[in-house]
Amino acid sequence: MKNYSIGKSRRIRSTPYTSRIEKQGVTSYTTYNHMLLPAAFGSIEDSYHHLKKYVQVWDVAAERQVEICGKDSARLIQLMTCRDLSKSKVGRCYYCPIIDDQAGIINDPVVLKLNEEKWWISVADSDVILFAKGLAIGNNFDVKIIEPNVDIMAVQGPKSFKLMEKVFGEKITKLKFFGFDYFEFKGTKHLIAQSGWSKQGGYEIYVENTKSGLELYDYLFEAGKEFNIKPGCPNLIERIESALLSYGNDMDNGDNPYECGFDKFINLDSNIIFLGKEKLKQIKSEGIKKKLMGVILEAKEISLSRSLDIKDEKSNKVGELRSACYSPHFEKVIGIAMLDMTFLRMSKSVKIDIKNSTYNGKVCDLPFI
Amino acid sequence: MKNYSIGKSRRIRSTPYTSRIEKQGVTSYTTYNHMLLPAAFGSIEDSYHHLKKYVQVWDVAAERQVEICGKDSARLIQLMTCRDLSKSKVGRCYYCPIIDDQAGIINDPVVLKLNEEKWWISVADSDVILFAKGLAIGNNFDVKIIEPNVDIMAVQGPKSFKLMEKVFGEKITKLKFFGFDYFEFKGTKHLIAQSGWSKQGGYEIYVENTKSGLELYDYLFEAGKEFNIKPGCPNLIERIESALLSYGNDMDNGDNPYECGFDKFINLDSNIIFLGKEKLKQIKSEGIKKKLMGVILEAKEISLSRSLDIKDEKSNKVGELRSACYSPHFEKVIGIAMLDMTFLRMSKSVKIDIKNSTYNGKVCDLPFI
Repeated sequence: MKNYSIGKSRRIRSTPYTSRIEKQGVTSYTTYNHMLLPAAFGSIEDSYHHLKKYVQVWDVAAERQVEICGKDSARLIQLMTCRDLSKSKVGRCYYCPIIDDQAGIINDPVVLKLNEEKWWISVADSDVILFAKGLAIGNNFDVKIIEPNVDIMAVQGPKSFKLMEKVFGEKITKLKFFGFDYFEFKGTKHLIAQSGWSKQGGYEIYVENTKSGLELYDYLFEAGKEFNIKPGCPNLIERIESALLSYGNDMDNGDNPYECGFDKFINLDSNIIFLGKEKLKQIKSEGIKKKLMGVILEAKEISLSRSLDIKDEKSNKVGELRSACYSPHFEKVIGIAMLDMTFLRMSKSVKIDIKNSTYNGKVCDLPFI
Repeated sequence: MKNYSIGKSRRIRSTPYTSRIEKQGVTSYTTYNHMLLPAAFGSIEDSYHHLKKYVQVWDVAAERQVEICGKDSARLIQLMTCRDLSKSKVGRCYYCPIIDDQAGIINDPVVLKLNEEKWWISVADSDVILFAKGLAIGNNFDVKIIEPNVDIMAVQGPKSFKLMEKVFGEKITKLKFFGFDYFEFKGTKHLIAQSGWSKQGGYEIYVENTKSGLELYDYLFEAGKEFNIKPGCPNLIERIESALLSYGNDMDNGDNPYECGFDKFINLDSNIIFLGKEKLKQIKSEGIKKKLMGVILEAKEISLSRSLDIKDEKSNKVGELRSACYSPHFEKVIGIAMLDMTFLRMSKSVKIDIKNSTYNGKVCDLPFI
């Protein structure tokens, strides 16, 4: 695929780390929440192998926070998600599909409970802040909704644990997956969660104090030399192999959480009030018509910039491929596809046309690995 | 500024015209409403001169529509904007700042009244659909809100009038500025408005029938040969000279409509109900603290990817430059800046540091030309 340059402007916001990653060799950007998100530092496959073996620091400031404070904050948060948060704990992260009244997915953020009346929604790429404001105003909720100055840097990869212990001490090794706490770096406390958009393990540092955050960024690269540290970014290959879904790529407002396999994050039986609950009950009783699945194709190369039709053996369209990459692990092209349930009940064999050639493939469960 | 490539994916949606503009030489993209928006076809200055003299076709499908239908549609639309729409007419476009309950700007769309119970909001770069959904759900409004399949192509430049008359007949010459009507092309009717994001005159074709729209796209280039037609896109230089404000660049949720000079679109005296009305009354009585102004700098070159501090003659920060370009008309750098009112009352002289050099400049009213 030919390369096109990205036109920069204030509207596509830079992050505090942008000048650093540009010195460190970022080659490609995408945009995410009206902000620059690095997409490559040279070869994505090289970066994939490095991420699975060592440790990387990622500028993921584009994962913006929607801060909701106030007496009705818990009510508003619960209204937006089908996941039961009534027993949620301070210091924990919760993956929460946000849906509208028709049960269409609006975002799939991680929600952090900072205290009983203060929450952060760490959002994927859509303006959840506008949905929250609209709901709060319409319902006359007593809340304050802002986008705080929080610029996440992620430390990802198997060596991230040793590196973070070296920087923050043994205390950080006690942090459980999707737990968060505050850790000190040279006199400044940073909120750090054991989380991140890879399955290789690691942390996300929610930087509020930019000055200290930039010092920490530089310090991580110093301290990380012995672990072969490199700059990186969410990796297309790693995230597809691990089936970390991407809002806007794998799913959008036209899909509901059952179709995306989010069943364990849907709580229809409790008394909680959330949008789309009746619609979800109806969908559950009627059954879904399409489902997000993995596909493995007998192809060696793909570059996807929009959905590709997926066909059955008789060349009828049975779904669409939404994300795909060449997987070094499978030595084939793998992808995430939305497929018709009627087809899925009958067959697992698919065909896809890529650049004038037809490739055979098989449907499989997610995640691949 | 070094070039970085844009990482494409389904999340950054292509438009129906993408494959065409890539054959026609697009070199740079930005993203807008989660979609590709061309940012350059080679030299922006060459394109500027061409736009001011001839005619261009632009892929501005990224100007997405929020369609609001139903019994309460007018009520919802009015709730979102400080502009009085109570006397609005079917077949007209209205520039309407959308603000929240704190009078912070959320978007500055053009609103099209299709009929008494059907509206399109042609939005700038933020998810107005989520704000509208939140408000509608919270207020229990009887409306249906969708993003319809509408992919705008713009025909801009002084020769656009002759070209469109050639394609659609004399009837289209009767269309007034910001009026719209339906015009037939080979059996398909298209909604066409006399509008567009340049001050060189022209039309926006709201393509709902993609197949016919693509035929029309190709036909325009055939029919436009005699007018020296070229592909183009919103032009940074032309839009700054004309002071066509860009949401996210020149203003954002931290600014109110008085600060942006939208006074004529604020109707506090009528009985209409909209968000932020009380806040706007308060702002009006207290006076604004900052204002969007033009600046002309004694510099020959600039490439802005984030705000630049603007200083007074004693080097105190008095505001920020938010958009800027080299203007062939002024033979200087011009820009749009948010400046402190206390400073503006005393002085018109500013200083800006660009790449280690300090340049003097003058504040001026908008538009420049």
